[in-house]
Amino acid sequence: MSEHQDERDYDEYRVIEDLGGWQRSHHNNELTAANIGESVTLMGWVQFRRDHGGLIFIDLRDREGLTQVVFSPEQDGDAHERAHALRTEYVLAIKGTVRPRPEGMANAGLVTGEIEVVVEEYKLLNTSDTPPFTIEDRVEAGENLRLKYRFLDLRRPNLAKNFKLRHKAAQAVRRYLDDIGFLEVETPVLTKSTPEGARDFLVPSRVNQGQFYALPQSPQLFKQMLMVSGMDRYYQIVKCFRDEDLRADRQPEFTQIDIEMSFVNEQMVQDMAEGLVTSVFKNTLGKELPTPFPRMTYADAMRDYGVDKPDVRFDLKLQEVTDIFTGGGFKVFASAELVKVMRVPGGAELSRKEIDEYTKFVEIYGSKGLAWIKVKEDGEWQSPIVKFFSDDERAALAERTGAQPGDILFFQAGQADIANAALGNLRCKLGERLGLIDESAFAPLWITDFPLLEWDADEKRHVARHHPFTSARPEQMDVLESEPGNAIARAYDLVLNGFEVGGGSIRIHTPEQQEIMFKALGIGEEEAREKFGFLMDALRFGAPPHGGIAFGLDRLIMILCGAKSIREVIAFPKTQKATCLMTEAPGEVASKQLRELGIRLREKVQE
Amino acid sequence: MSEHQDERDYDEYRVIEDLGGWQRSHHNNELTAANIGESVTLMGWVQFRRDHGGLIFIDLRDREGLTQVVFSPEQDGDAHERAHALRTEYVLAIKGTVRPRPEGMANAGLVTGEIEVVVEEYKLLNTSDTPPFTIEDRVEAGENLRLKYRFLDLRRPNLAKNFKLRHKAAQAVRRYLDDIGFLEVETPVLTKSTPEGARDFLVPSRVNQGQFYALPQSPQLFKQMLMVSGMDRYYQIVKCFRDEDLRADRQPEFTQIDIEMSFVNEQMVQDMAEGLVTSVFKNTLGKELPTPFPRMTYADAMRDYGVDKPDVRFDLKLQEVTDIFTGGGFKVFASAELVKVMRVPGGAELSRKEIDEYTKFVEIYGSKGLAWIKVKEDGEWQSPIVKFFSDDERAALAERTGAQPGDILFFQAGQADIANAALGNLRCKLGERLGLIDESAFAPLWITDFPLLEWDADEKRHVARHHPFTSARPEQMDVLESEPGNAIARAYDLVLNGFEVGGGSIRIHTPEQQEIMFKALGIGEEEAREKFGFLMDALRFGAPPHGGIAFGLDRLIMILCGAKSIREVIAFPKTQKATCLMTEAPGEVASKQLRELGIRLREKVQE
Repeated sequence: MSEHQDERDYDEYRVIEDLGGWQRSHHNNELTAANIGESVTLMGWVQFRRDHGGLIFIDLRDREGLTQVVFSPEQDGDAHERAHALRTEYVLAIKGTVRPRPEGMANAGLVTGEIEVVVEEYKLLNTSDTPPFTIEDRVEAGENLRLKYRFLDLRRPNLAKNFKLRHKAAQAVRRYLDDIGFLEVETPVLTKSTPEGARDFLVPSRVNQGQFYALPQSPQLFKQMLMVSGMDRYYQIVKCFRDEDLRADRQPEFTQIDIEMSFVNEQMVQDMAEGLVTSVFKNTLGKELPTPFPRMTYADAMRDYGVDKPDVRFDLKLQEVTDIFTGGGFKVFASAELVKVMRVPGGAELSRKEIDEYTKFVEIYGSKGLAWIKVKEDGEWQSPIVKFFSDDERAALAERTGAQPGDILFFQAGQADIANAALGNLRCKLGERLGLIDESAFAPLWITDFPLLEWDADEKRHVARHHPFTSARPEQMDVLESEPGNAIARAYDLVLNGFEVGGGSIRIHTPEQQEIMFKALGIGEEEAREKFGFLMDALRFGAPPHGGIAFGLDRLIMILCGAKSIREVIAFPKTQKATCLMTEAPGEVASKQLRELGIRLREKVQE
Repeated sequence: MSEHQDERDYDEYRVIEDLGGWQRSHHNNELTAANIGESVTLMGWVQFRRDHGGLIFIDLRDREGLTQVVFSPEQDGDAHERAHALRTEYVLAIKGTVRPRPEGMANAGLVTGEIEVVVEEYKLLNTSDTPPFTIEDRVEAGENLRLKYRFLDLRRPNLAKNFKLRHKAAQAVRRYLDDIGFLEVETPVLTKSTPEGARDFLVPSRVNQGQFYALPQSPQLFKQMLMVSGMDRYYQIVKCFRDEDLRADRQPEFTQIDIEMSFVNEQMVQDMAEGLVTSVFKNTLGKELPTPFPRMTYADAMRDYGVDKPDVRFDLKLQEVTDIFTGGGFKVFASAELVKVMRVPGGAELSRKEIDEYTKFVEIYGSKGLAWIKVKEDGEWQSPIVKFFSDDERAALAERTGAQPGDILFFQAGQADIANAALGNLRCKLGERLGLIDESAFAPLWITDFPLLEWDADEKRHVARHHPFTSARPEQMDVLESEPGNAIARAYDLVLNGFEVGGGSIRIHTPEQQEIMFKALGIGEEEAREKFGFLMDALRFGAPPHGGIAFGLDRLIMILCGAKSIREVIAFPKTQKATCLMTEAPGEVASKQLRELGIRLREKVQE
């Protein structure tokens, strides 16, 4: 606090006053030259105090912005004298008059930069200890300290801005859906544990001891029930829960824009979704997204990008070259299920060290190595593996890839899913490294024609790629019975800048189709009845054709804000250990509480 | 299905078709004479089928209404022939042409009553088993059967209407609050168990074994944190949870409109709340509620109505008569802490049997009896107790109550809280019985000046009447320290037709005040830190003056709908045993799930 030249003890002035009937006239981002001469009442926090020429200047901050207020000894009363006591983050209400800043003192970087408010009267509404970190966007404090004092971290203008945008986005969603006949309907949070899916959070029942509620992973079955009930068009912005290990950027509770419609096909859901997303962009960033969004089949995405959520803001593509090397002299390629190459223009500049890092990176996806070829300026191929290639292989590779001087080629060979994932994810890393990504661009993309099922090697059975209520194409019901692995789902994902932001499908709406699906999943009749009895019932009583989509709101807002983590768009996020550092949740509870619930802790094994 | 004269087997026509590209052109409440001649596509459920004069008539139902569609043998194709297969609750898509109904066949009770649609082509989208109860507003089925088949019960037009109103109300709330600068911010569902309050639902943590999250009883502390963070104006329409015994009309999870504002006093919160409620009424019922709402202190409400949520749609009032009888000849009254009388004009018509019922009714509130006096047409007092009164007591009672022929006087004497509750609740019962209540009226009322604390006889300490974060009046901080029981809170409830629909307060915003409050509650420093440490921290760093209110959305919607139970305005409600009869939640879970959570069931005592 070096700006406070006078370090006398002003405790006598630190008496907290009641707000009384004082009423704010403006936010701190509102006053401009147009208001000069007006009497105003402002409230907020002391962002900064500066004593200069006998005057005391305060930057008063609220949610909306900053206004400079001035305490002058020339004013009547003791406001100036008392203002010596003010410190950073104190809370004030001031009454004063708007006047222009002196010649040459305007601050063009601030809406209110042309004026200041000379204080006539003020109330000290609260004092503040010195905060553990300063309230400004360039924050140096570690994330854990900031999460513990989240109520202070949220004062940072950048973070506050994210929540304003989130609010606007949620309202844009609601207004858009209201206007086209959707009803917001709330579904239960205390619901039933469902076996197919991620791990549930459980809630022990006190009234029905020995039984548990589960928190919903999504309102999937409830929204289908609402369609059976004729609700026609449903949505909800709703918390969902998954008790999964929180690798990467996940939260145990997350928010979904959940939507379901009756009497629709894929195209109608997608048209609605495009309208929704464009409306959100318009109402938050003022940006027009062109429609219709581009579309890509799952098969094409895997072929060209190696992943089912390609970031198409940049143009690197993978190419299959299995055929060139099959049975050839380079053993690693010769016998591989899949050999893929990615030609990276300008990639020859990558250092050996970087290539080593990428080699480590692809190991995350199960890859055993990263082969590469640099094309030097003279056209020579520099590579540890080229010596194993025949001339024909070299020529075919050169032709297929069109490799040019300055390029690097990266290879993956082996099991198809590993090779694709490794090269597809490396692609995104290289896009960043080489500055190929236009950070201001938004590239939405529909991915369609997903396989309905995927093989679960552990359980040795097919599992649903989306969920067991996703319909196969009508003409594919036979396929689902005869070769279930080849059935194509009526499912679609919306990908934005390489993130899956939405996913949905047309659902099964007849008991016959649902039975075929359960059969394909190896779920017997009895098991189906036990787990999904009410769904089977519901389909027997006139379920309409229906489908829907769900958007991950946290992720969508993160992208809109340009934030690096969803923790920056969630008010009170949890850590990767699923704890809240502010409230210290979860915590221990009284044994009386457990007794009432009919549960006890398992004895811990002595360590 | 007696209307189906032809009972041939039409299974060959019951082939379910895919919707394909068919797109609905209108809802079933839209077509009028203005549409005659238009080609339309309608979808919905068979409400009713009637065969007449070789034609087949179907009332096609969707969320919005009914349209009559006609299958005629004169049309091309096999639509008419296939329509013989249609049964109640089958799902159809039809294409046809709008035409006027024949002379004299219009149905004035239906928006679409002037027209019918003659079908040219149709798709059978689904069949239906015969529902366990018919889909119409006059439902005879028991509530349990309807809850099990909730997806069918929700098809009833009356129930569907409730959810449309609920949707409109929620949107009106959001639009109103958006327009005046509120931000919707989501607060966590997985939070920490808080000791002061009702019983928490607990969620065992898998990652942090032995620890538990709690589901929030309200986002109280989080919304206060948001004010500390400068969010300024917060709201959320949010699920809250209380694991209490579900007497009366309660649900373990319920929805709250949760609101908090910075830099406000009581009046500002109340003005905002009145604007909110009037906007909801206008946008749902089209009704203008006059503002400002009437106000009544807690003390006056208890004095005149015996309860703190009086139904002021009718005018019966209680009167205190303790002074008349103190030390007199009728022992029960003479020594009572409180003697109150309610004069009920026209109540002399009540039968002995009814009075006996009311005597039972007041026992619910702890009363030991219900004394009464009927004033007969000749002015004579008929009563089991009058013989114990002195002439002076009679005269004083006659003068105080102004009792007239045809009236009945009901008395309660004894402990004040019991006497008030008994007579106050009897008042509402009599209001209904005697037709004193205008069922179309809405009577909002602020109750103010609540006591801050109340004495908990079990715990032998004061507890917070609202919650421990409610501020006392600024001028009463001394009272709070010296005679805590007499402190008046800056709290207010909004009562509507005898229901508490909202409640709030100005909160404590300084650590000093919070410490005095904790002390008054007998919560020691260490305990306070352990339970509310982050709140104490937050108040130290520049918390602004703030306050708010929360509305019970379920109850508010119930009143708006004129529904008898909140179960009629919740899509998937739970029973009084906290079970969902549709999904069969709660249920048993796999022992693997419990093992992962580090908990086990307590052994049940053998019965």
